[in-house]
Amino acid sequence: MLGEIIAIGNELTSGRIPNTTSGFAAHHLFKAGFDIYAMHTIGDTPKLIGEALKRALGRVDFVLVTGGLGTTDDDLTTVAVSEALNRPTMPNLEILSLIRKHLDANTGQPVSSLEKLAWLPEGAEALNAQSKMSGFQLIHDGKPIFFLPGIPHQMRTLLVEQVLPRLATWYKGSRLNSVQQVFKIFGIQESDINSAVEALPLDKDVEIGYYPVFPEVHLSMTIRGNNKTKTEQLAKETSRLLKQTLGSALYGRDQDTLQSVVGELLQKRNKKLSVAESCTGGLISYLVTSIAGSSAYYLGGVTSYADSMKTTYLDVDESTLKTYGAVSKEVATAMVEGMRKQSSADISLSVTGIAGPDGGSVEKPVGTVFIGIADQEDTRVERFLFTGNRYEIQQLTAQTALDIVRRSLLETE
Amino acid sequence: MLGEIIAIGNELTSGRIPNTTSGFAAHHLFKAGFDIYAMHTIGDTPKLIGEALKRALGRVDFVLVTGGLGTTDDDLTTVAVSEALNRPTMPNLEILSLIRKHLDANTGQPVSSLEKLAWLPEGAEALNAQSKMSGFQLIHDGKPIFFLPGIPHQMRTLLVEQVLPRLATWYKGSRLNSVQQVFKIFGIQESDINSAVEALPLDKDVEIGYYPVFPEVHLSMTIRGNNKTKTEQLAKETSRLLKQTLGSALYGRDQDTLQSVVGELLQKRNKKLSVAESCTGGLISYLVTSIAGSSAYYLGGVTSYADSMKTTYLDVDESTLKTYGAVSKEVATAMVEGMRKQSSADISLSVTGIAGPDGGSVEKPVGTVFIGIADQEDTRVERFLFTGNRYEIQQLTAQTALDIVRRSLLETE
Repeated sequence: MLGEIIAIGNELTSGRIPNTTSGFAAHHLFKAGFDIYAMHTIGDTPKLIGEALKRALGRVDFVLVTGGLGTTDDDLTTVAVSEALNRPTMPNLEILSLIRKHLDANTGQPVSSLEKLAWLPEGAEALNAQSKMSGFQLIHDGKPIFFLPGIPHQMRTLLVEQVLPRLATWYKGSRLNSVQQVFKIFGIQESDINSAVEALPLDKDVEIGYYPVFPEVHLSMTIRGNNKTKTEQLAKETSRLLKQTLGSALYGRDQDTLQSVVGELLQKRNKKLSVAESCTGGLISYLVTSIAGSSAYYLGGVTSYADSMKTTYLDVDESTLKTYGAVSKEVATAMVEGMRKQSSADISLSVTGIAGPDGGSVEKPVGTVFIGIADQEDTRVERFLFTGNRYEIQQLTAQTALDIVRRSLLETE
Repeated sequence: MLGEIIAIGNELTSGRIPNTTSGFAAHHLFKAGFDIYAMHTIGDTPKLIGEALKRALGRVDFVLVTGGLGTTDDDLTTVAVSEALNRPTMPNLEILSLIRKHLDANTGQPVSSLEKLAWLPEGAEALNAQSKMSGFQLIHDGKPIFFLPGIPHQMRTLLVEQVLPRLATWYKGSRLNSVQQVFKIFGIQESDINSAVEALPLDKDVEIGYYPVFPEVHLSMTIRGNNKTKTEQLAKETSRLLKQTLGSALYGRDQDTLQSVVGELLQKRNKKLSVAESCTGGLISYLVTSIAGSSAYYLGGVTSYADSMKTTYLDVDESTLKTYGAVSKEVATAMVEGMRKQSSADISLSVTGIAGPDGGSVEKPVGTVFIGIADQEDTRVERFLFTGNRYEIQQLTAQTALDIVRRSLLETE
């Protein structure tokens, strides 16, 4: 069951208004078990509208057209369709009579300017004559074409209330059930995930997609089938298989982010966090506070970029800095313990490293980072070597630090 | 000049991810004076990708293709193009050598799985081999085709830095002399800039484009002509005219950012900065340290998200917090003075406000922010009311704070 979506309007092709309706339609049609072969956004150009419509009819089972149904001169969809499919427009009497009830506030006369809305291509069936913009359906070459207004809330209502049920009954049986889930992964290369997942004995109905969202990888699992219970069963099994394969690198699903997951865990465990940063310069703190309500579990932090800040705000001994250097296990330890004591947090983080491009050395090249975590019980510091430019090293360091908090909170479950 | 945009990816046709890149591209292309004939969104289907590309080449002057350039099995754009346009793929040696520098963290071997990125259709020119996803340009039937990654931030950078300038100078095959300059503006509405610039007596060869890059506005000046010296002369005059008109809201050119400009000024004046943040949660500090070499002028800061942090690390009196509330002129003053004294910086910043969505009140609605700046001489605190969601309010606050530092440094010139 294949369809195409055509959105019409110069406001879209000029980028003045983002096209939100096509994605909404695709999402709902997909969930209802239909595949979208292509989506097109075109200007108010009758010739192109007709072209796109005829081409779509030639290769898919149904077409959804949005926009260009209004009363103004640049609303040309109906005209274009009437020409392209050779169906002269004629008034829909129900819509016309409803329009004629609309009286002009000043003249008291019927609002004739609205009557354009009643003229539909021959054979068109109004989807909902009662609604402000009725939209209509055409059956052409035995295929349904749905015309909806471009105004998002009107389009959405008609899609959900009229188009989806009509399509469902139009192709009874051939509609597929579908389940989709997004797996959010941190700490494994996309290519490694790819080969690990390829090695799995996945059912042919399972479709896997990879979307790198630096420095993470998002994996989408899509399952389609004729039998609802079988599809959902397959989804459960596949989901479990993927979870096993991805292990603890799988930090969340769908809308989760590392900082939101860490936030939820902190709140569940009723723990307060504070952070002492150096090479990330405040990024970790910003990520944590980008979540609404983070004040419930986040105290704050210190960005000790200069050594003087490490001594003043984190009680790091100058001797420790002199002996081991700012980028060292010893300083990371002093930073995280100083942070935790003074802020009286349950858990504290520290990061110190070389984000580059300068400052690297043979035994501590650019990308060398020490990440420390401390709680009531103990303090742990890990050494990392990240690759990438300054931006990437800062991002990788911050995400890795958040992931360390996530893993330590999971242990204390 | 007429163009088409083709976005590729099953994540788009399934509606799992909204297509934000096509609208962004259309918006910028339109403002740069190009018309978009149609936008298409299609799945990872080579046959359809080739079809759409060939049809577009048949009716417009240039084509922009986004997505499907990655390393995984579902990235099929390059293959599709190579087949459709009959251009066998061959490795781009610059990209290949850069990839071979990436070593696997475990094996220490070059990450061969990435080499797919280097294989481009015959005749392809990499747009920016240095960037993670280089993108490429093809000239086919005398028309430019631009291939960009689907990942929004990568696509946007390549579009603005590579595609727009290239297209600006592309003129039906024949290349004109062209000068392009981007003016970066903060603190004036796009519409106000627009009317101010429209009032200028600009030469007909001058093309002005506006690119709102939240929360800034970027203005691009493109000048094309047959005579090189005349073009450059006109560019100089226009540039001076624009600089006059934009005044101090013009903070930089081309690759400048507010944080890079502030950094240069601090270094020139030999001043050290420290920052006390609350509602921005470390964003200001991160922006400053995102600049390589910022350790030369940045000491660090405190993110006092909880009140306890304000008293412990910034010597804010509990009584002040009780009497005036954390979001107040008095607390902003205490924060910035405490910060400056303890860090012994030349200049310190403080921000305290309500980023929302919760925490607003009648006299202090969401978006209320106090920004303080202090140096040896005095302390100033300004009250702002920003509108937008949490993300936007945090960004606006951080940028405004940086701009306040910039302006105060300009005064002390």
